[in-house]
Amino acid sequence: MITANDPKRESWLEVQAKSDFPIQNIPFGVFITKDDIVTIGTRIGDYAIDLSALQMLGYLKGIELTDDVFLQDNLNDFISSGKKTWRAVRNRIADIFDKADPTLQNNAKHKEAVIFKIEEVEMQLPVYIGDYTDFYSSREHATNVGKMFRDPANALLPNWLHIPVGYHGRSSTVIPSGIHVKRPMGQTLPKGESQPIFGPSTRIDFELETAFITTDANLFGESIPVDEAEEHIFGMVLLNDWSARDIQTWEYVPLGPFLAKNFATSISPWVITLDALEPFRTVSPKQDPTPLPYLQQTGDKTFDINLEVYLQPENGQDNLICESNFKYLYWTMSQQLAHHTVNGCKINAGDLMGSGTISGTAPNSFGSLLELTWAGANPITLADGSTRTFIEDYDTITMKGYCQNDDIRIGFGEVSSMLLPSTATMK
Amino acid sequence: MITANDPKRESWLEVQAKSDFPIQNIPFGVFITKDDIVTIGTRIGDYAIDLSALQMLGYLKGIELTDDVFLQDNLNDFISSGKKTWRAVRNRIADIFDKADPTLQNNAKHKEAVIFKIEEVEMQLPVYIGDYTDFYSSREHATNVGKMFRDPANALLPNWLHIPVGYHGRSSTVIPSGIHVKRPMGQTLPKGESQPIFGPSTRIDFELETAFITTDANLFGESIPVDEAEEHIFGMVLLNDWSARDIQTWEYVPLGPFLAKNFATSISPWVITLDALEPFRTVSPKQDPTPLPYLQQTGDKTFDINLEVYLQPENGQDNLICESNFKYLYWTMSQQLAHHTVNGCKINAGDLMGSGTISGTAPNSFGSLLELTWAGANPITLADGSTRTFIEDYDTITMKGYCQNDDIRIGFGEVSSMLLPSTATMK
Repeated sequence: MITANDPKRESWLEVQAKSDFPIQNIPFGVFITKDDIVTIGTRIGDYAIDLSALQMLGYLKGIELTDDVFLQDNLNDFISSGKKTWRAVRNRIADIFDKADPTLQNNAKHKEAVIFKIEEVEMQLPVYIGDYTDFYSSREHATNVGKMFRDPANALLPNWLHIPVGYHGRSSTVIPSGIHVKRPMGQTLPKGESQPIFGPSTRIDFELETAFITTDANLFGESIPVDEAEEHIFGMVLLNDWSARDIQTWEYVPLGPFLAKNFATSISPWVITLDALEPFRTVSPKQDPTPLPYLQQTGDKTFDINLEVYLQPENGQDNLICESNFKYLYWTMSQQLAHHTVNGCKINAGDLMGSGTISGTAPNSFGSLLELTWAGANPITLADGSTRTFIEDYDTITMKGYCQNDDIRIGFGEVSSMLLPSTATMK
Repeated sequence: MITANDPKRESWLEVQAKSDFPIQNIPFGVFITKDDIVTIGTRIGDYAIDLSALQMLGYLKGIELTDDVFLQDNLNDFISSGKKTWRAVRNRIADIFDKADPTLQNNAKHKEAVIFKIEEVEMQLPVYIGDYTDFYSSREHATNVGKMFRDPANALLPNWLHIPVGYHGRSSTVIPSGIHVKRPMGQTLPKGESQPIFGPSTRIDFELETAFITTDANLFGESIPVDEAEEHIFGMVLLNDWSARDIQTWEYVPLGPFLAKNFATSISPWVITLDALEPFRTVSPKQDPTPLPYLQQTGDKTFDINLEVYLQPENGQDNLICESNFKYLYWTMSQQLAHHTVNGCKINAGDLMGSGTISGTAPNSFGSLLELTWAGANPITLADGSTRTFIEDYDTITMKGYCQNDDIRIGFGEVSSMLLPSTATMK
């Protein structure tokens, strides 16, 4: 039972009306405290809660946990402990911080050890990512790309409606929100030329995505049935799949994007559990043709998650440039995971699975500048009067995500980072 | 100075005349001893040498090493210690096992703790692989594939002579020699049909490759110049890039191979250092057009490594079906690593970089059944009279590699594994 989801619950910690993190959320993340301790924690309102301290003080008694499961710089071991444990911990946290529970609420010393202001902690990557896979599951996005670069009359490739198309990304350059990204150098073929040139990419783009994080779900050589897939999904984050379009165009045939993508992939630091998203289940788009049996499922297998992208010029204001929704995706996370493992591919705890760019049908729902500006043909105009075809140096891209019903709002926080010039020195 | 390479050295351990592992080799690997200890070790002749025991007994004194650097289940920390350290350890091992050195030679108790018969140990994956990249650097292979599937008159794609084309693979399914592979299930489009079907792949292939293993070479956002790249390459292994051609054909457009490859990638367990390969440096193919400056290099940047592939039917004999050479590759490892990082992509210790299928010009040098049988059109005949287009259940594929000059032979050992039927139960 997911008792943590009761919409009537209120926390004794202050939660602002529009907060992404009411007591019904209880995400998991990793942070460094002001005392330089790395720990796993959760968040309520604008407070970060140290779960290793909470465990040490005895608040998690009765839940089967190893002693140091939260004193880690990643969630992998906790994720490996399985859904029953994640749920027990989440339910317990809900009880501890419920107005009705006086124990921690009335213990000033314990509160000091456990609770930090969010601005006092430094968020880290939530998981150690063994493998990162990126799917391509928005029909609208795949259609837009097909129209621009291939045949407008046959924009979708023949395999697209049968396969949740995906490919492998680079784990080593997945970074948390707040780490800036340097404009990559690379090889490109200028339009109309036959010889490539070398220099900074001139077509840097974002891709609005979410990603799910798995547990160690199968043996080498074994597959995960589509109906069991959700049991092995720990939770979700927002993901900005930074892309260098000019590098991509020149390099990607026949083996797919490589340097156009692996310079950086940014994710939001709080992992929102599927349990927290449960009230926002909704139906996914009708699939026609019917997929092969190993991909067939019934019921509401997606979630209604509002997604937004903001572009902020240097010293300027945020411009909302895209409003999309996770529910637009044609292929569900269950189908992606079933497909990924149907050949026996081993999935581990902490693996990251990107959704692919999430575009809707409305032009303002397109999840990349490539689509919003139609490959640069229709620049967008910002509030300060400047225009953009692609991202400029010192622009900050921020993605936000939230679910909202009459009772509660469950949010993702944000993934935000600035594009630095190619000449920037990294430390 | 690489004193370990002196061809006049002889070991007091017995080394057969045609051994891949004379005292001039000194590879690094990870094994489990008969006492169930996991350790890093090396190999001379048919003896596995426990480096953690050697260190504990004081034989590595004077070399800057942490106490537990060899008491690990992977080489990553040792690789992180850098080339100076790898070289010092290799030189020291050469001295300890040199006939001229009586110390360990005459200490029966120490020998018992340090030296195992190779059949008494169980080889493991040598590194924890954070990221696995596979290149596509054989001109002959790319040309063969282009002729078969695209335009025979324009077999090479426009980018191929300008870019060491590569893509990301799946780390979680890289397995050591000896682990069997299950025929994957998957989605394919039968010839002439418009609807895909689901079932066991019927076109399982090997790809003859080598791979190099890197150290942590750069910061996020920084690149590695082509002239410095070799400093960050720890060593090489053999790699079998198992491929399901029917799955690949249907899935790979536009994002590249995915399930066609990620069911298994097998590597040989001993990492051969670049230092050991030094006597076998040779010139790489002339590059025309001249690559862009960040890929330009001079000198002998490749190695003369003979490569062989054997196919053994169930209970049958080995058939030598391919003889190729690493030196045929158009792009060098230095160029691959410089290209991979030119956009700032972070490289870590233990990363695996596959060469791509290594084919030569002679038909018997083609590094895959796809090419050897020309997509199944020309079956090969085995010694027992049976024929093969692709790999059949219970066939064992074995790849071997060795360098040979008048003085010495430096070998890789082998990567060998059997294809099991799709109905096999994995443990």
